[in-house]
Amino acid sequence: MINTNTLLLQNLQQIVGHEFVFYDTDTLLQYGHDETEDYSFPPNFLVKPRTTQEIAAIVKLANEYAIPLVPIGGQTGLSGGALAIHGGIGLSMERLNKILHVDENNLQVTTEPAVITQVLRDAVAEKGLFYPVDPSSMGSCFIGGNIAENSGGARAVKYGVTKDYVLNLEVVLPTGEIIWTGANTLKNSTGYNLTQLMVGSEGTLGIVTKIVLKLLPLNKYNMLLLVPFYKAEEACEAVSAIFRAGIVPSALEFMERDAIDWAVKYIEGISIVIQPEHQAHLLIEVDGNYPEILMLEAEKILEVVEQFSIDEVLFADTEEQKNAIWKMRRGVAEAVKANSIYKEEDTVVPRYELPKLLKGIKKIGAKYGFQSVCYGHAGDGNLHVNIIKGTLSDTAWQNEVPKGIKEIFELTVALKGTISGEHGIGYVQKNYLPIAMQPKQIDVLRNIKKVFDPKNILNPGKILPD
Amino acid sequence: MINTNTLLLQNLQQIVGHEFVFYDTDTLLQYGHDETEDYSFPPNFLVKPRTTQEIAAIVKLANEYAIPLVPIGGQTGLSGGALAIHGGIGLSMERLNKILHVDENNLQVTTEPAVITQVLRDAVAEKGLFYPVDPSSMGSCFIGGNIAENSGGARAVKYGVTKDYVLNLEVVLPTGEIIWTGANTLKNSTGYNLTQLMVGSEGTLGIVTKIVLKLLPLNKYNMLLLVPFYKAEEACEAVSAIFRAGIVPSALEFMERDAIDWAVKYIEGISIVIQPEHQAHLLIEVDGNYPEILMLEAEKILEVVEQFSIDEVLFADTEEQKNAIWKMRRGVAEAVKANSIYKEEDTVVPRYELPKLLKGIKKIGAKYGFQSVCYGHAGDGNLHVNIIKGTLSDTAWQNEVPKGIKEIFELTVALKGTISGEHGIGYVQKNYLPIAMQPKQIDVLRNIKKVFDPKNILNPGKILPD
Repeated sequence: MINTNTLLLQNLQQIVGHEFVFYDTDTLLQYGHDETEDYSFPPNFLVKPRTTQEIAAIVKLANEYAIPLVPIGGQTGLSGGALAIHGGIGLSMERLNKILHVDENNLQVTTEPAVITQVLRDAVAEKGLFYPVDPSSMGSCFIGGNIAENSGGARAVKYGVTKDYVLNLEVVLPTGEIIWTGANTLKNSTGYNLTQLMVGSEGTLGIVTKIVLKLLPLNKYNMLLLVPFYKAEEACEAVSAIFRAGIVPSALEFMERDAIDWAVKYIEGISIVIQPEHQAHLLIEVDGNYPEILMLEAEKILEVVEQFSIDEVLFADTEEQKNAIWKMRRGVAEAVKANSIYKEEDTVVPRYELPKLLKGIKKIGAKYGFQSVCYGHAGDGNLHVNIIKGTLSDTAWQNEVPKGIKEIFELTVALKGTISGEHGIGYVQKNYLPIAMQPKQIDVLRNIKKVFDPKNILNPGKILPD
Repeated sequence: MINTNTLLLQNLQQIVGHEFVFYDTDTLLQYGHDETEDYSFPPNFLVKPRTTQEIAAIVKLANEYAIPLVPIGGQTGLSGGALAIHGGIGLSMERLNKILHVDENNLQVTTEPAVITQVLRDAVAEKGLFYPVDPSSMGSCFIGGNIAENSGGARAVKYGVTKDYVLNLEVVLPTGEIIWTGANTLKNSTGYNLTQLMVGSEGTLGIVTKIVLKLLPLNKYNMLLLVPFYKAEEACEAVSAIFRAGIVPSALEFMERDAIDWAVKYIEGISIVIQPEHQAHLLIEVDGNYPEILMLEAEKILEVVEQFSIDEVLFADTEEQKNAIWKMRRGVAEAVKANSIYKEEDTVVPRYELPKLLKGIKKIGAKYGFQSVCYGHAGDGNLHVNIIKGTLSDTAWQNEVPKGIKEIFELTVALKGTISGEHGIGYVQKNYLPIAMQPKQIDVLRNIKKVFDPKNILNPGKILPD
């Protein structure tokens, strides 16, 4: 075993250079987690290649040794997709961090995967272009990780998720071969859609090394409304009513009472004052190039929400006010995380079913004795359910809570939804997959995995149930 | 052989009833073609099932007999995807023609595959909803065929193609098993994206029997501009300039001189007067809910196109004028088809590369002695190239023209484009696939096909090169 490891180490050092191969405990621990619960799964080696060719050589090596290879991005994942659960080689993508070409003529950007999503958004915005996908972690997550998990975010309701912007990918296959999956075109009916098969595959089918994304012209204006509801379920009902009124907001976020309380309590500098009698808030943004139209749309939205029991609506029209509201929204997960062990479920249903989902979750929580904090991208029907450990016993946490989660997912699927909207299945949800998929469908997934990775070396133990 | 056929016939009759199994020459010929050139490939039997279960039984039978099974939709395809090139069972989908549920609460529609695209568009429009995908054949093509080929259309430039609206599919697999590919949600990060793998797979991986589509609120207004250019390449250049000015039109179509001439000459009732000195026209539509904004956008577009050599712009603001212009645009293919044998190539490039593509196509045509009529969805970089047989000898048509097509595709790929934007690869383009894909990529496609259809019974001889 020592011999094999020594040989492997030497080979890795030969490929990327001594200074980019690590096996000290600190480094391995540092790369052994993401943002999923409190898991720690350090790899046996951590390598930091710089090029596609180096990655291809590492993949070949892993194949030869039949050793797990786990791509690691910004470590912000919420489904444990980047955890080296079977050890092996951790493949940090961090040095592939260049934006290669902002193509203003074609409204496209070609980038390496380890560019931070916010950095990419800013770089294209400087040229008047817009990359709309904005996961809450966009200040630290990598665009490559967004592709692995098919990340969404607040603007998905109008602009779609990561998959809707990916035109073409350079991918190192588990054999070490390098392919491009598509073409740099807006339309493509040329063979099976390998690009979309790769998006959301969580690094189990290949390693994405270059990315071509579609961009839009940057909208000049937006307006943000914060609407306090006396009843949480009515807030959910209003979501669907807004669309039925013919409005497509650029964001439509739901936060229940507890979510805001946690954010206000634990995140510094939140200046929004929330009244105790408000059970939930909707955060509604409209965007476009004409301020007078945004005002008209805001008025239409007001007409819709006024049909429900609401308190006074806050119109945020300064950058400062907008930032304060977004800070509160983005701070919820962080606040919960900082203050209790928790499990985050990423339920998604057709948006009209949200009130039923919310009600069901609370009922299931009561049955199994857990508290949950719910918030998320209501416009997409995507509700994040943070289940709080709080004062629950370890036994209840380990035995009762998973039963409750199973029931939540069963409810989600019964409402024609599914068990992950934007976080992926990864490690923590894989054994719930049979709730969302028939055995035959899982068989197809397994067989597709085998087409790409017959030796199961690439990020093993993810997506597919044990 | 007669015994096998007799047995097969009896089995088919048992599944769908005697009245829905056909083997008379007329019926077989009638179902033996689509709109691709002048091909005729009648199946040996033609069946018209009504239900998913009947289709599952037919698929099982085909598997047992190892006989080809070819799904047939509206027969409007342009790549020969529905041709029974190896005979076998033709599976007409025509009786699965019900719109099952227009879900106004969730802005979704669930439909069977044989609903005509225009019928579906009209049905949802009645409820204030919008299904944007509008292939030129929308008056007769089936929504299921649109999914098979990932069809686009004039509005794709703003609203995307078929794949962007498909949320979930019921599919009969080649084993006869029935699965749903996803969930009825706007977001989904639950396992590999089987929905997108199915879209554009041209009936080679499974038979789509139910479809859930995303809808949008219907826009109330649009405005149409017809811009005559003195130089065709400048028209192509203007396309990219419009986007760079921050405008996303709802249609941006290119027609070169010859395309309009053919349409005006052969399609009745086209009242547009075209001047001989105009080399090309752009047809530009903007849409939205506020007429005053459309006027502003139209003015911005005018500012952009006036930087090129153009003649007077026609603003169509009555329904009559708009219909006349669209009739002309949609009539091009029909006009060409009615008057010469032709081959239609479906080239697509990043939109800024259009002028280079157009120039290259003309040069290649001159080299190999063929005339081409070019038009298409310029906003997407999608140029349809109709190669006219006209007075070419059969020898030149069979030997020289394919060399020219190969060069056109090589040019397309060199410009970072690909060989089909919205028509699919089907039968006629399959042997050009290696121009667009590396051998390893084609291997992956072949292996995916095997995962679904190990006996290669489902629409054999399509997409993958011989």
